[in-house]
Amino acid sequence: MIMMNQETICAIATPAGVGGVAIIRVSGPDAHAICDSIYFPAKKGNLLVYQAPYSMSFGQIRSENEILDEVLISVFKSPNSFTGEDTVEINCHASSFIQKEILKLLIANACRLATAGEFTQRAFMNGKLDLSQAEAVADLIASSSSASHRLAMSQMRGGFSTELKKLREQLLNFVSMIELELDFSEEDVEFADRSQLLALAHAMRLVIANLVSSFSLGNAIKNGIPVVIVGETNAGKSTLLNHLLKEDKAIVSDIHGTTRDVIEDVVNIKGISFRFIDTAGIRDTVDEIETMGIERTFQQIKKAAIIIWMIDATQFSEKIESVADKIVPITDGKKLIIAFNKIDKINMEEQAVLEEEFLSYVKATRIYLSAKYKTNTASLEKALLQAADLPEINQNEVVITNMRHYEALSKSLLAIDRLIEGLNANISGDFLSQDIRECMHHLEEITGQISTDEVLANIFGKFCIGK
Amino acid sequence: MIMMNQETICAIATPAGVGGVAIIRVSGPDAHAICDSIYFPAKKGNLLVYQAPYSMSFGQIRSENEILDEVLISVFKSPNSFTGEDTVEINCHASSFIQKEILKLLIANACRLATAGEFTQRAFMNGKLDLSQAEAVADLIASSSSASHRLAMSQMRGGFSTELKKLREQLLNFVSMIELELDFSEEDVEFADRSQLLALAHAMRLVIANLVSSFSLGNAIKNGIPVVIVGETNAGKSTLLNHLLKEDKAIVSDIHGTTRDVIEDVVNIKGISFRFIDTAGIRDTVDEIETMGIERTFQQIKKAAIIIWMIDATQFSEKIESVADKIVPITDGKKLIIAFNKIDKINMEEQAVLEEEFLSYVKATRIYLSAKYKTNTASLEKALLQAADLPEINQNEVVITNMRHYEALSKSLLAIDRLIEGLNANISGDFLSQDIRECMHHLEEITGQISTDEVLANIFGKFCIGK
Repeated sequence: MIMMNQETICAIATPAGVGGVAIIRVSGPDAHAICDSIYFPAKKGNLLVYQAPYSMSFGQIRSENEILDEVLISVFKSPNSFTGEDTVEINCHASSFIQKEILKLLIANACRLATAGEFTQRAFMNGKLDLSQAEAVADLIASSSSASHRLAMSQMRGGFSTELKKLREQLLNFVSMIELELDFSEEDVEFADRSQLLALAHAMRLVIANLVSSFSLGNAIKNGIPVVIVGETNAGKSTLLNHLLKEDKAIVSDIHGTTRDVIEDVVNIKGISFRFIDTAGIRDTVDEIETMGIERTFQQIKKAAIIIWMIDATQFSEKIESVADKIVPITDGKKLIIAFNKIDKINMEEQAVLEEEFLSYVKATRIYLSAKYKTNTASLEKALLQAADLPEINQNEVVITNMRHYEALSKSLLAIDRLIEGLNANISGDFLSQDIRECMHHLEEITGQISTDEVLANIFGKFCIGK
Repeated sequence: MIMMNQETICAIATPAGVGGVAIIRVSGPDAHAICDSIYFPAKKGNLLVYQAPYSMSFGQIRSENEILDEVLISVFKSPNSFTGEDTVEINCHASSFIQKEILKLLIANACRLATAGEFTQRAFMNGKLDLSQAEAVADLIASSSSASHRLAMSQMRGGFSTELKKLREQLLNFVSMIELELDFSEEDVEFADRSQLLALAHAMRLVIANLVSSFSLGNAIKNGIPVVIVGETNAGKSTLLNHLLKEDKAIVSDIHGTTRDVIEDVVNIKGISFRFIDTAGIRDTVDEIETMGIERTFQQIKKAAIIIWMIDATQFSEKIESVADKIVPITDGKKLIIAFNKIDKINMEEQAVLEEEFLSYVKATRIYLSAKYKTNTASLEKALLQAADLPEINQNEVVITNMRHYEALSKSLLAIDRLIEGLNANISGDFLSQDIRECMHHLEEITGQISTDEVLANIFGKFCIGK
């Protein structure tokens, strides 16, 4: 069932910029014919329209008889393509000029420039992917840790959708029976066994409640576990953060240079993303702690799941208690790691005496390191991983990472609760039907079995152009 | 004749960053086998080793049984690939994580990360491209105007090499004859007709001299025609430059975002690149003109081919003469455009009187515009194109754009001159042979028929990784 989009669209599918090769993707009913009008294969007469699907040919793109580029052309035929439509991929040299000129040439030949996410939207429209799978494509592209990648891959491969569709199907069976009863209402028959329905409702409640509660985990994995580093201005916070960031970025910097702003302070430790939140350094006089700056730091502590409190071990004194008085009360329910820095410079025995008293105020994991000399920084990573305490997730596990899914599931959970309540109160079939229909509605929203243009625009608008 | 590289290399061929699709290229004797060990086609049992060349298959890349990505794999077989070697191209999702992980997986399976330009260098080594064609690949990728693109394309397609190889062959014929004479030196024969050789030398001199002199044009096309905008501080230089830059960048900004720094001040007007050089604004008092700042501006004027002298028409007065006294003497041999700005604010008749006197000092193209209101800025573009005065170049024309080629050709020209001199002086065959050999040597340097590791490292080191 391929939707007949009238328009053939084109866009650069590869990352923006200059490089060896770029891919320009053309999809729609006229993809082959349009490309035939600008493409001259090295083996003359081989029209793309007749070229075998999943095959490539080498030739030239020409504009007014001038060679624009030597290219490799890949041909896909409906329905066996990403979008489900006829598709051509042009592998050209990734010069800014060539990419731009080929797009201009395609547009002059009746292509339209694709909007963000339009290829994936067409794939969805053509039933190649359901909505949650399409959303997973964007998550997959954005994933920067093995955990977030794993969840996106599982979702893209449909694990999540399969589960929801199974639930929906069971509800559909029951609601059909109940609605059949309504047709025969004068005869007072009961096609749908109420105790079976109650058992199903309880079973579904468990599954959906599990999915809903998996969101905090999924969100932490997708966006990184929020961590603040607090401490006095010279405690070594920046040195530590730079160290953590550098370790992670050294390998990847060549690869995703352009996304640097976005991932600036996300650190990937053993496959788990930690999103570090900047805080203003706490000044070392008690008075200044009272200022606005520190208030803002407190706001950020509230957003975090983990707090690293860095203390300059060489400056450590009883004075710290007044800071502790401020910080400790707001660490409730969060993991607190106290990192004594500059351990290269201190006498550990003297330190121990001071700490003893301090630790009567503050309960936390303690670590000792030198950010500057990178001594013992592994202990911090270990403490972070312990504090994160994420369960091991395998690729078949279903974890919610998407706010839209979370909201729809939460609503379907409410409907299930009303259904259970109604069944216990022995209410009539038409009310039960209404709750079941509402529950189904929210499940269908997730997979896109029902969707509005607005929802689609919102989802696909977040994609990059060319996907 | 495919060189047997022992190592199989891999790299990301598409621009760095996040996007829809990325291509990871694998080339070398084990490309197919290595990819087979990490790739699981959707149709089981279809080993890449047996897959038809120029065909694609869909499947998964797996790492320790976990799905890393769903990919399209393209297979090329030696010698019919870009490098001439067995090659696999993996089209994966362009997430930073996936790109990095696939590379790691390939490296774990005995691939080596390619160095900059290594794929093209292998193409050269395997005789798929000569050296000047390989260099043109880098130029093609870097080209940002239709003119520079056209020259790179012509060079990549071998127009230039063909010409040089023809010249070299003619020289080879003669030098063989002359060297044959030396073998029979006791018999005093003359196999090579001296007058024919002289005619050839003159003909070659013409061709090579033309190529050498085409370099200033080629260089202007490749790197942009240097233009300085000079003028008093409030004359509107920045407004104009911003206007010119914006017009050009609006279309292309999505495409080559990452090269922004490099093209920052190159403006493409009707396919010709103008490289604008920043200058400190000239202050409006005569004394300050004497300062260092303006001296630096004068240095930059010397580097330019075109000078736009912007004058705030509302501030225009006889005072300008003292500036003219400084500027005019150093515009010799350069094109000077005087742009009267802010014409929206002036009485044109009063202006005419002032100008009359001024123009007795300064001979230049005059234009009138408002940079702020973008009035008549087209007249500036027209004046720039006229000043540039580049001949129309077609794709078959040979124009030198590469400094290395320019130097080699200049040296071969010197050798030809010595040859002509020698022929006129009727010197003996062994001396003639030496000059011809030297001329040939420099021509061979260009095409890479002779090359040193150092030259190759220098040329390919400038490529991006993945090409």
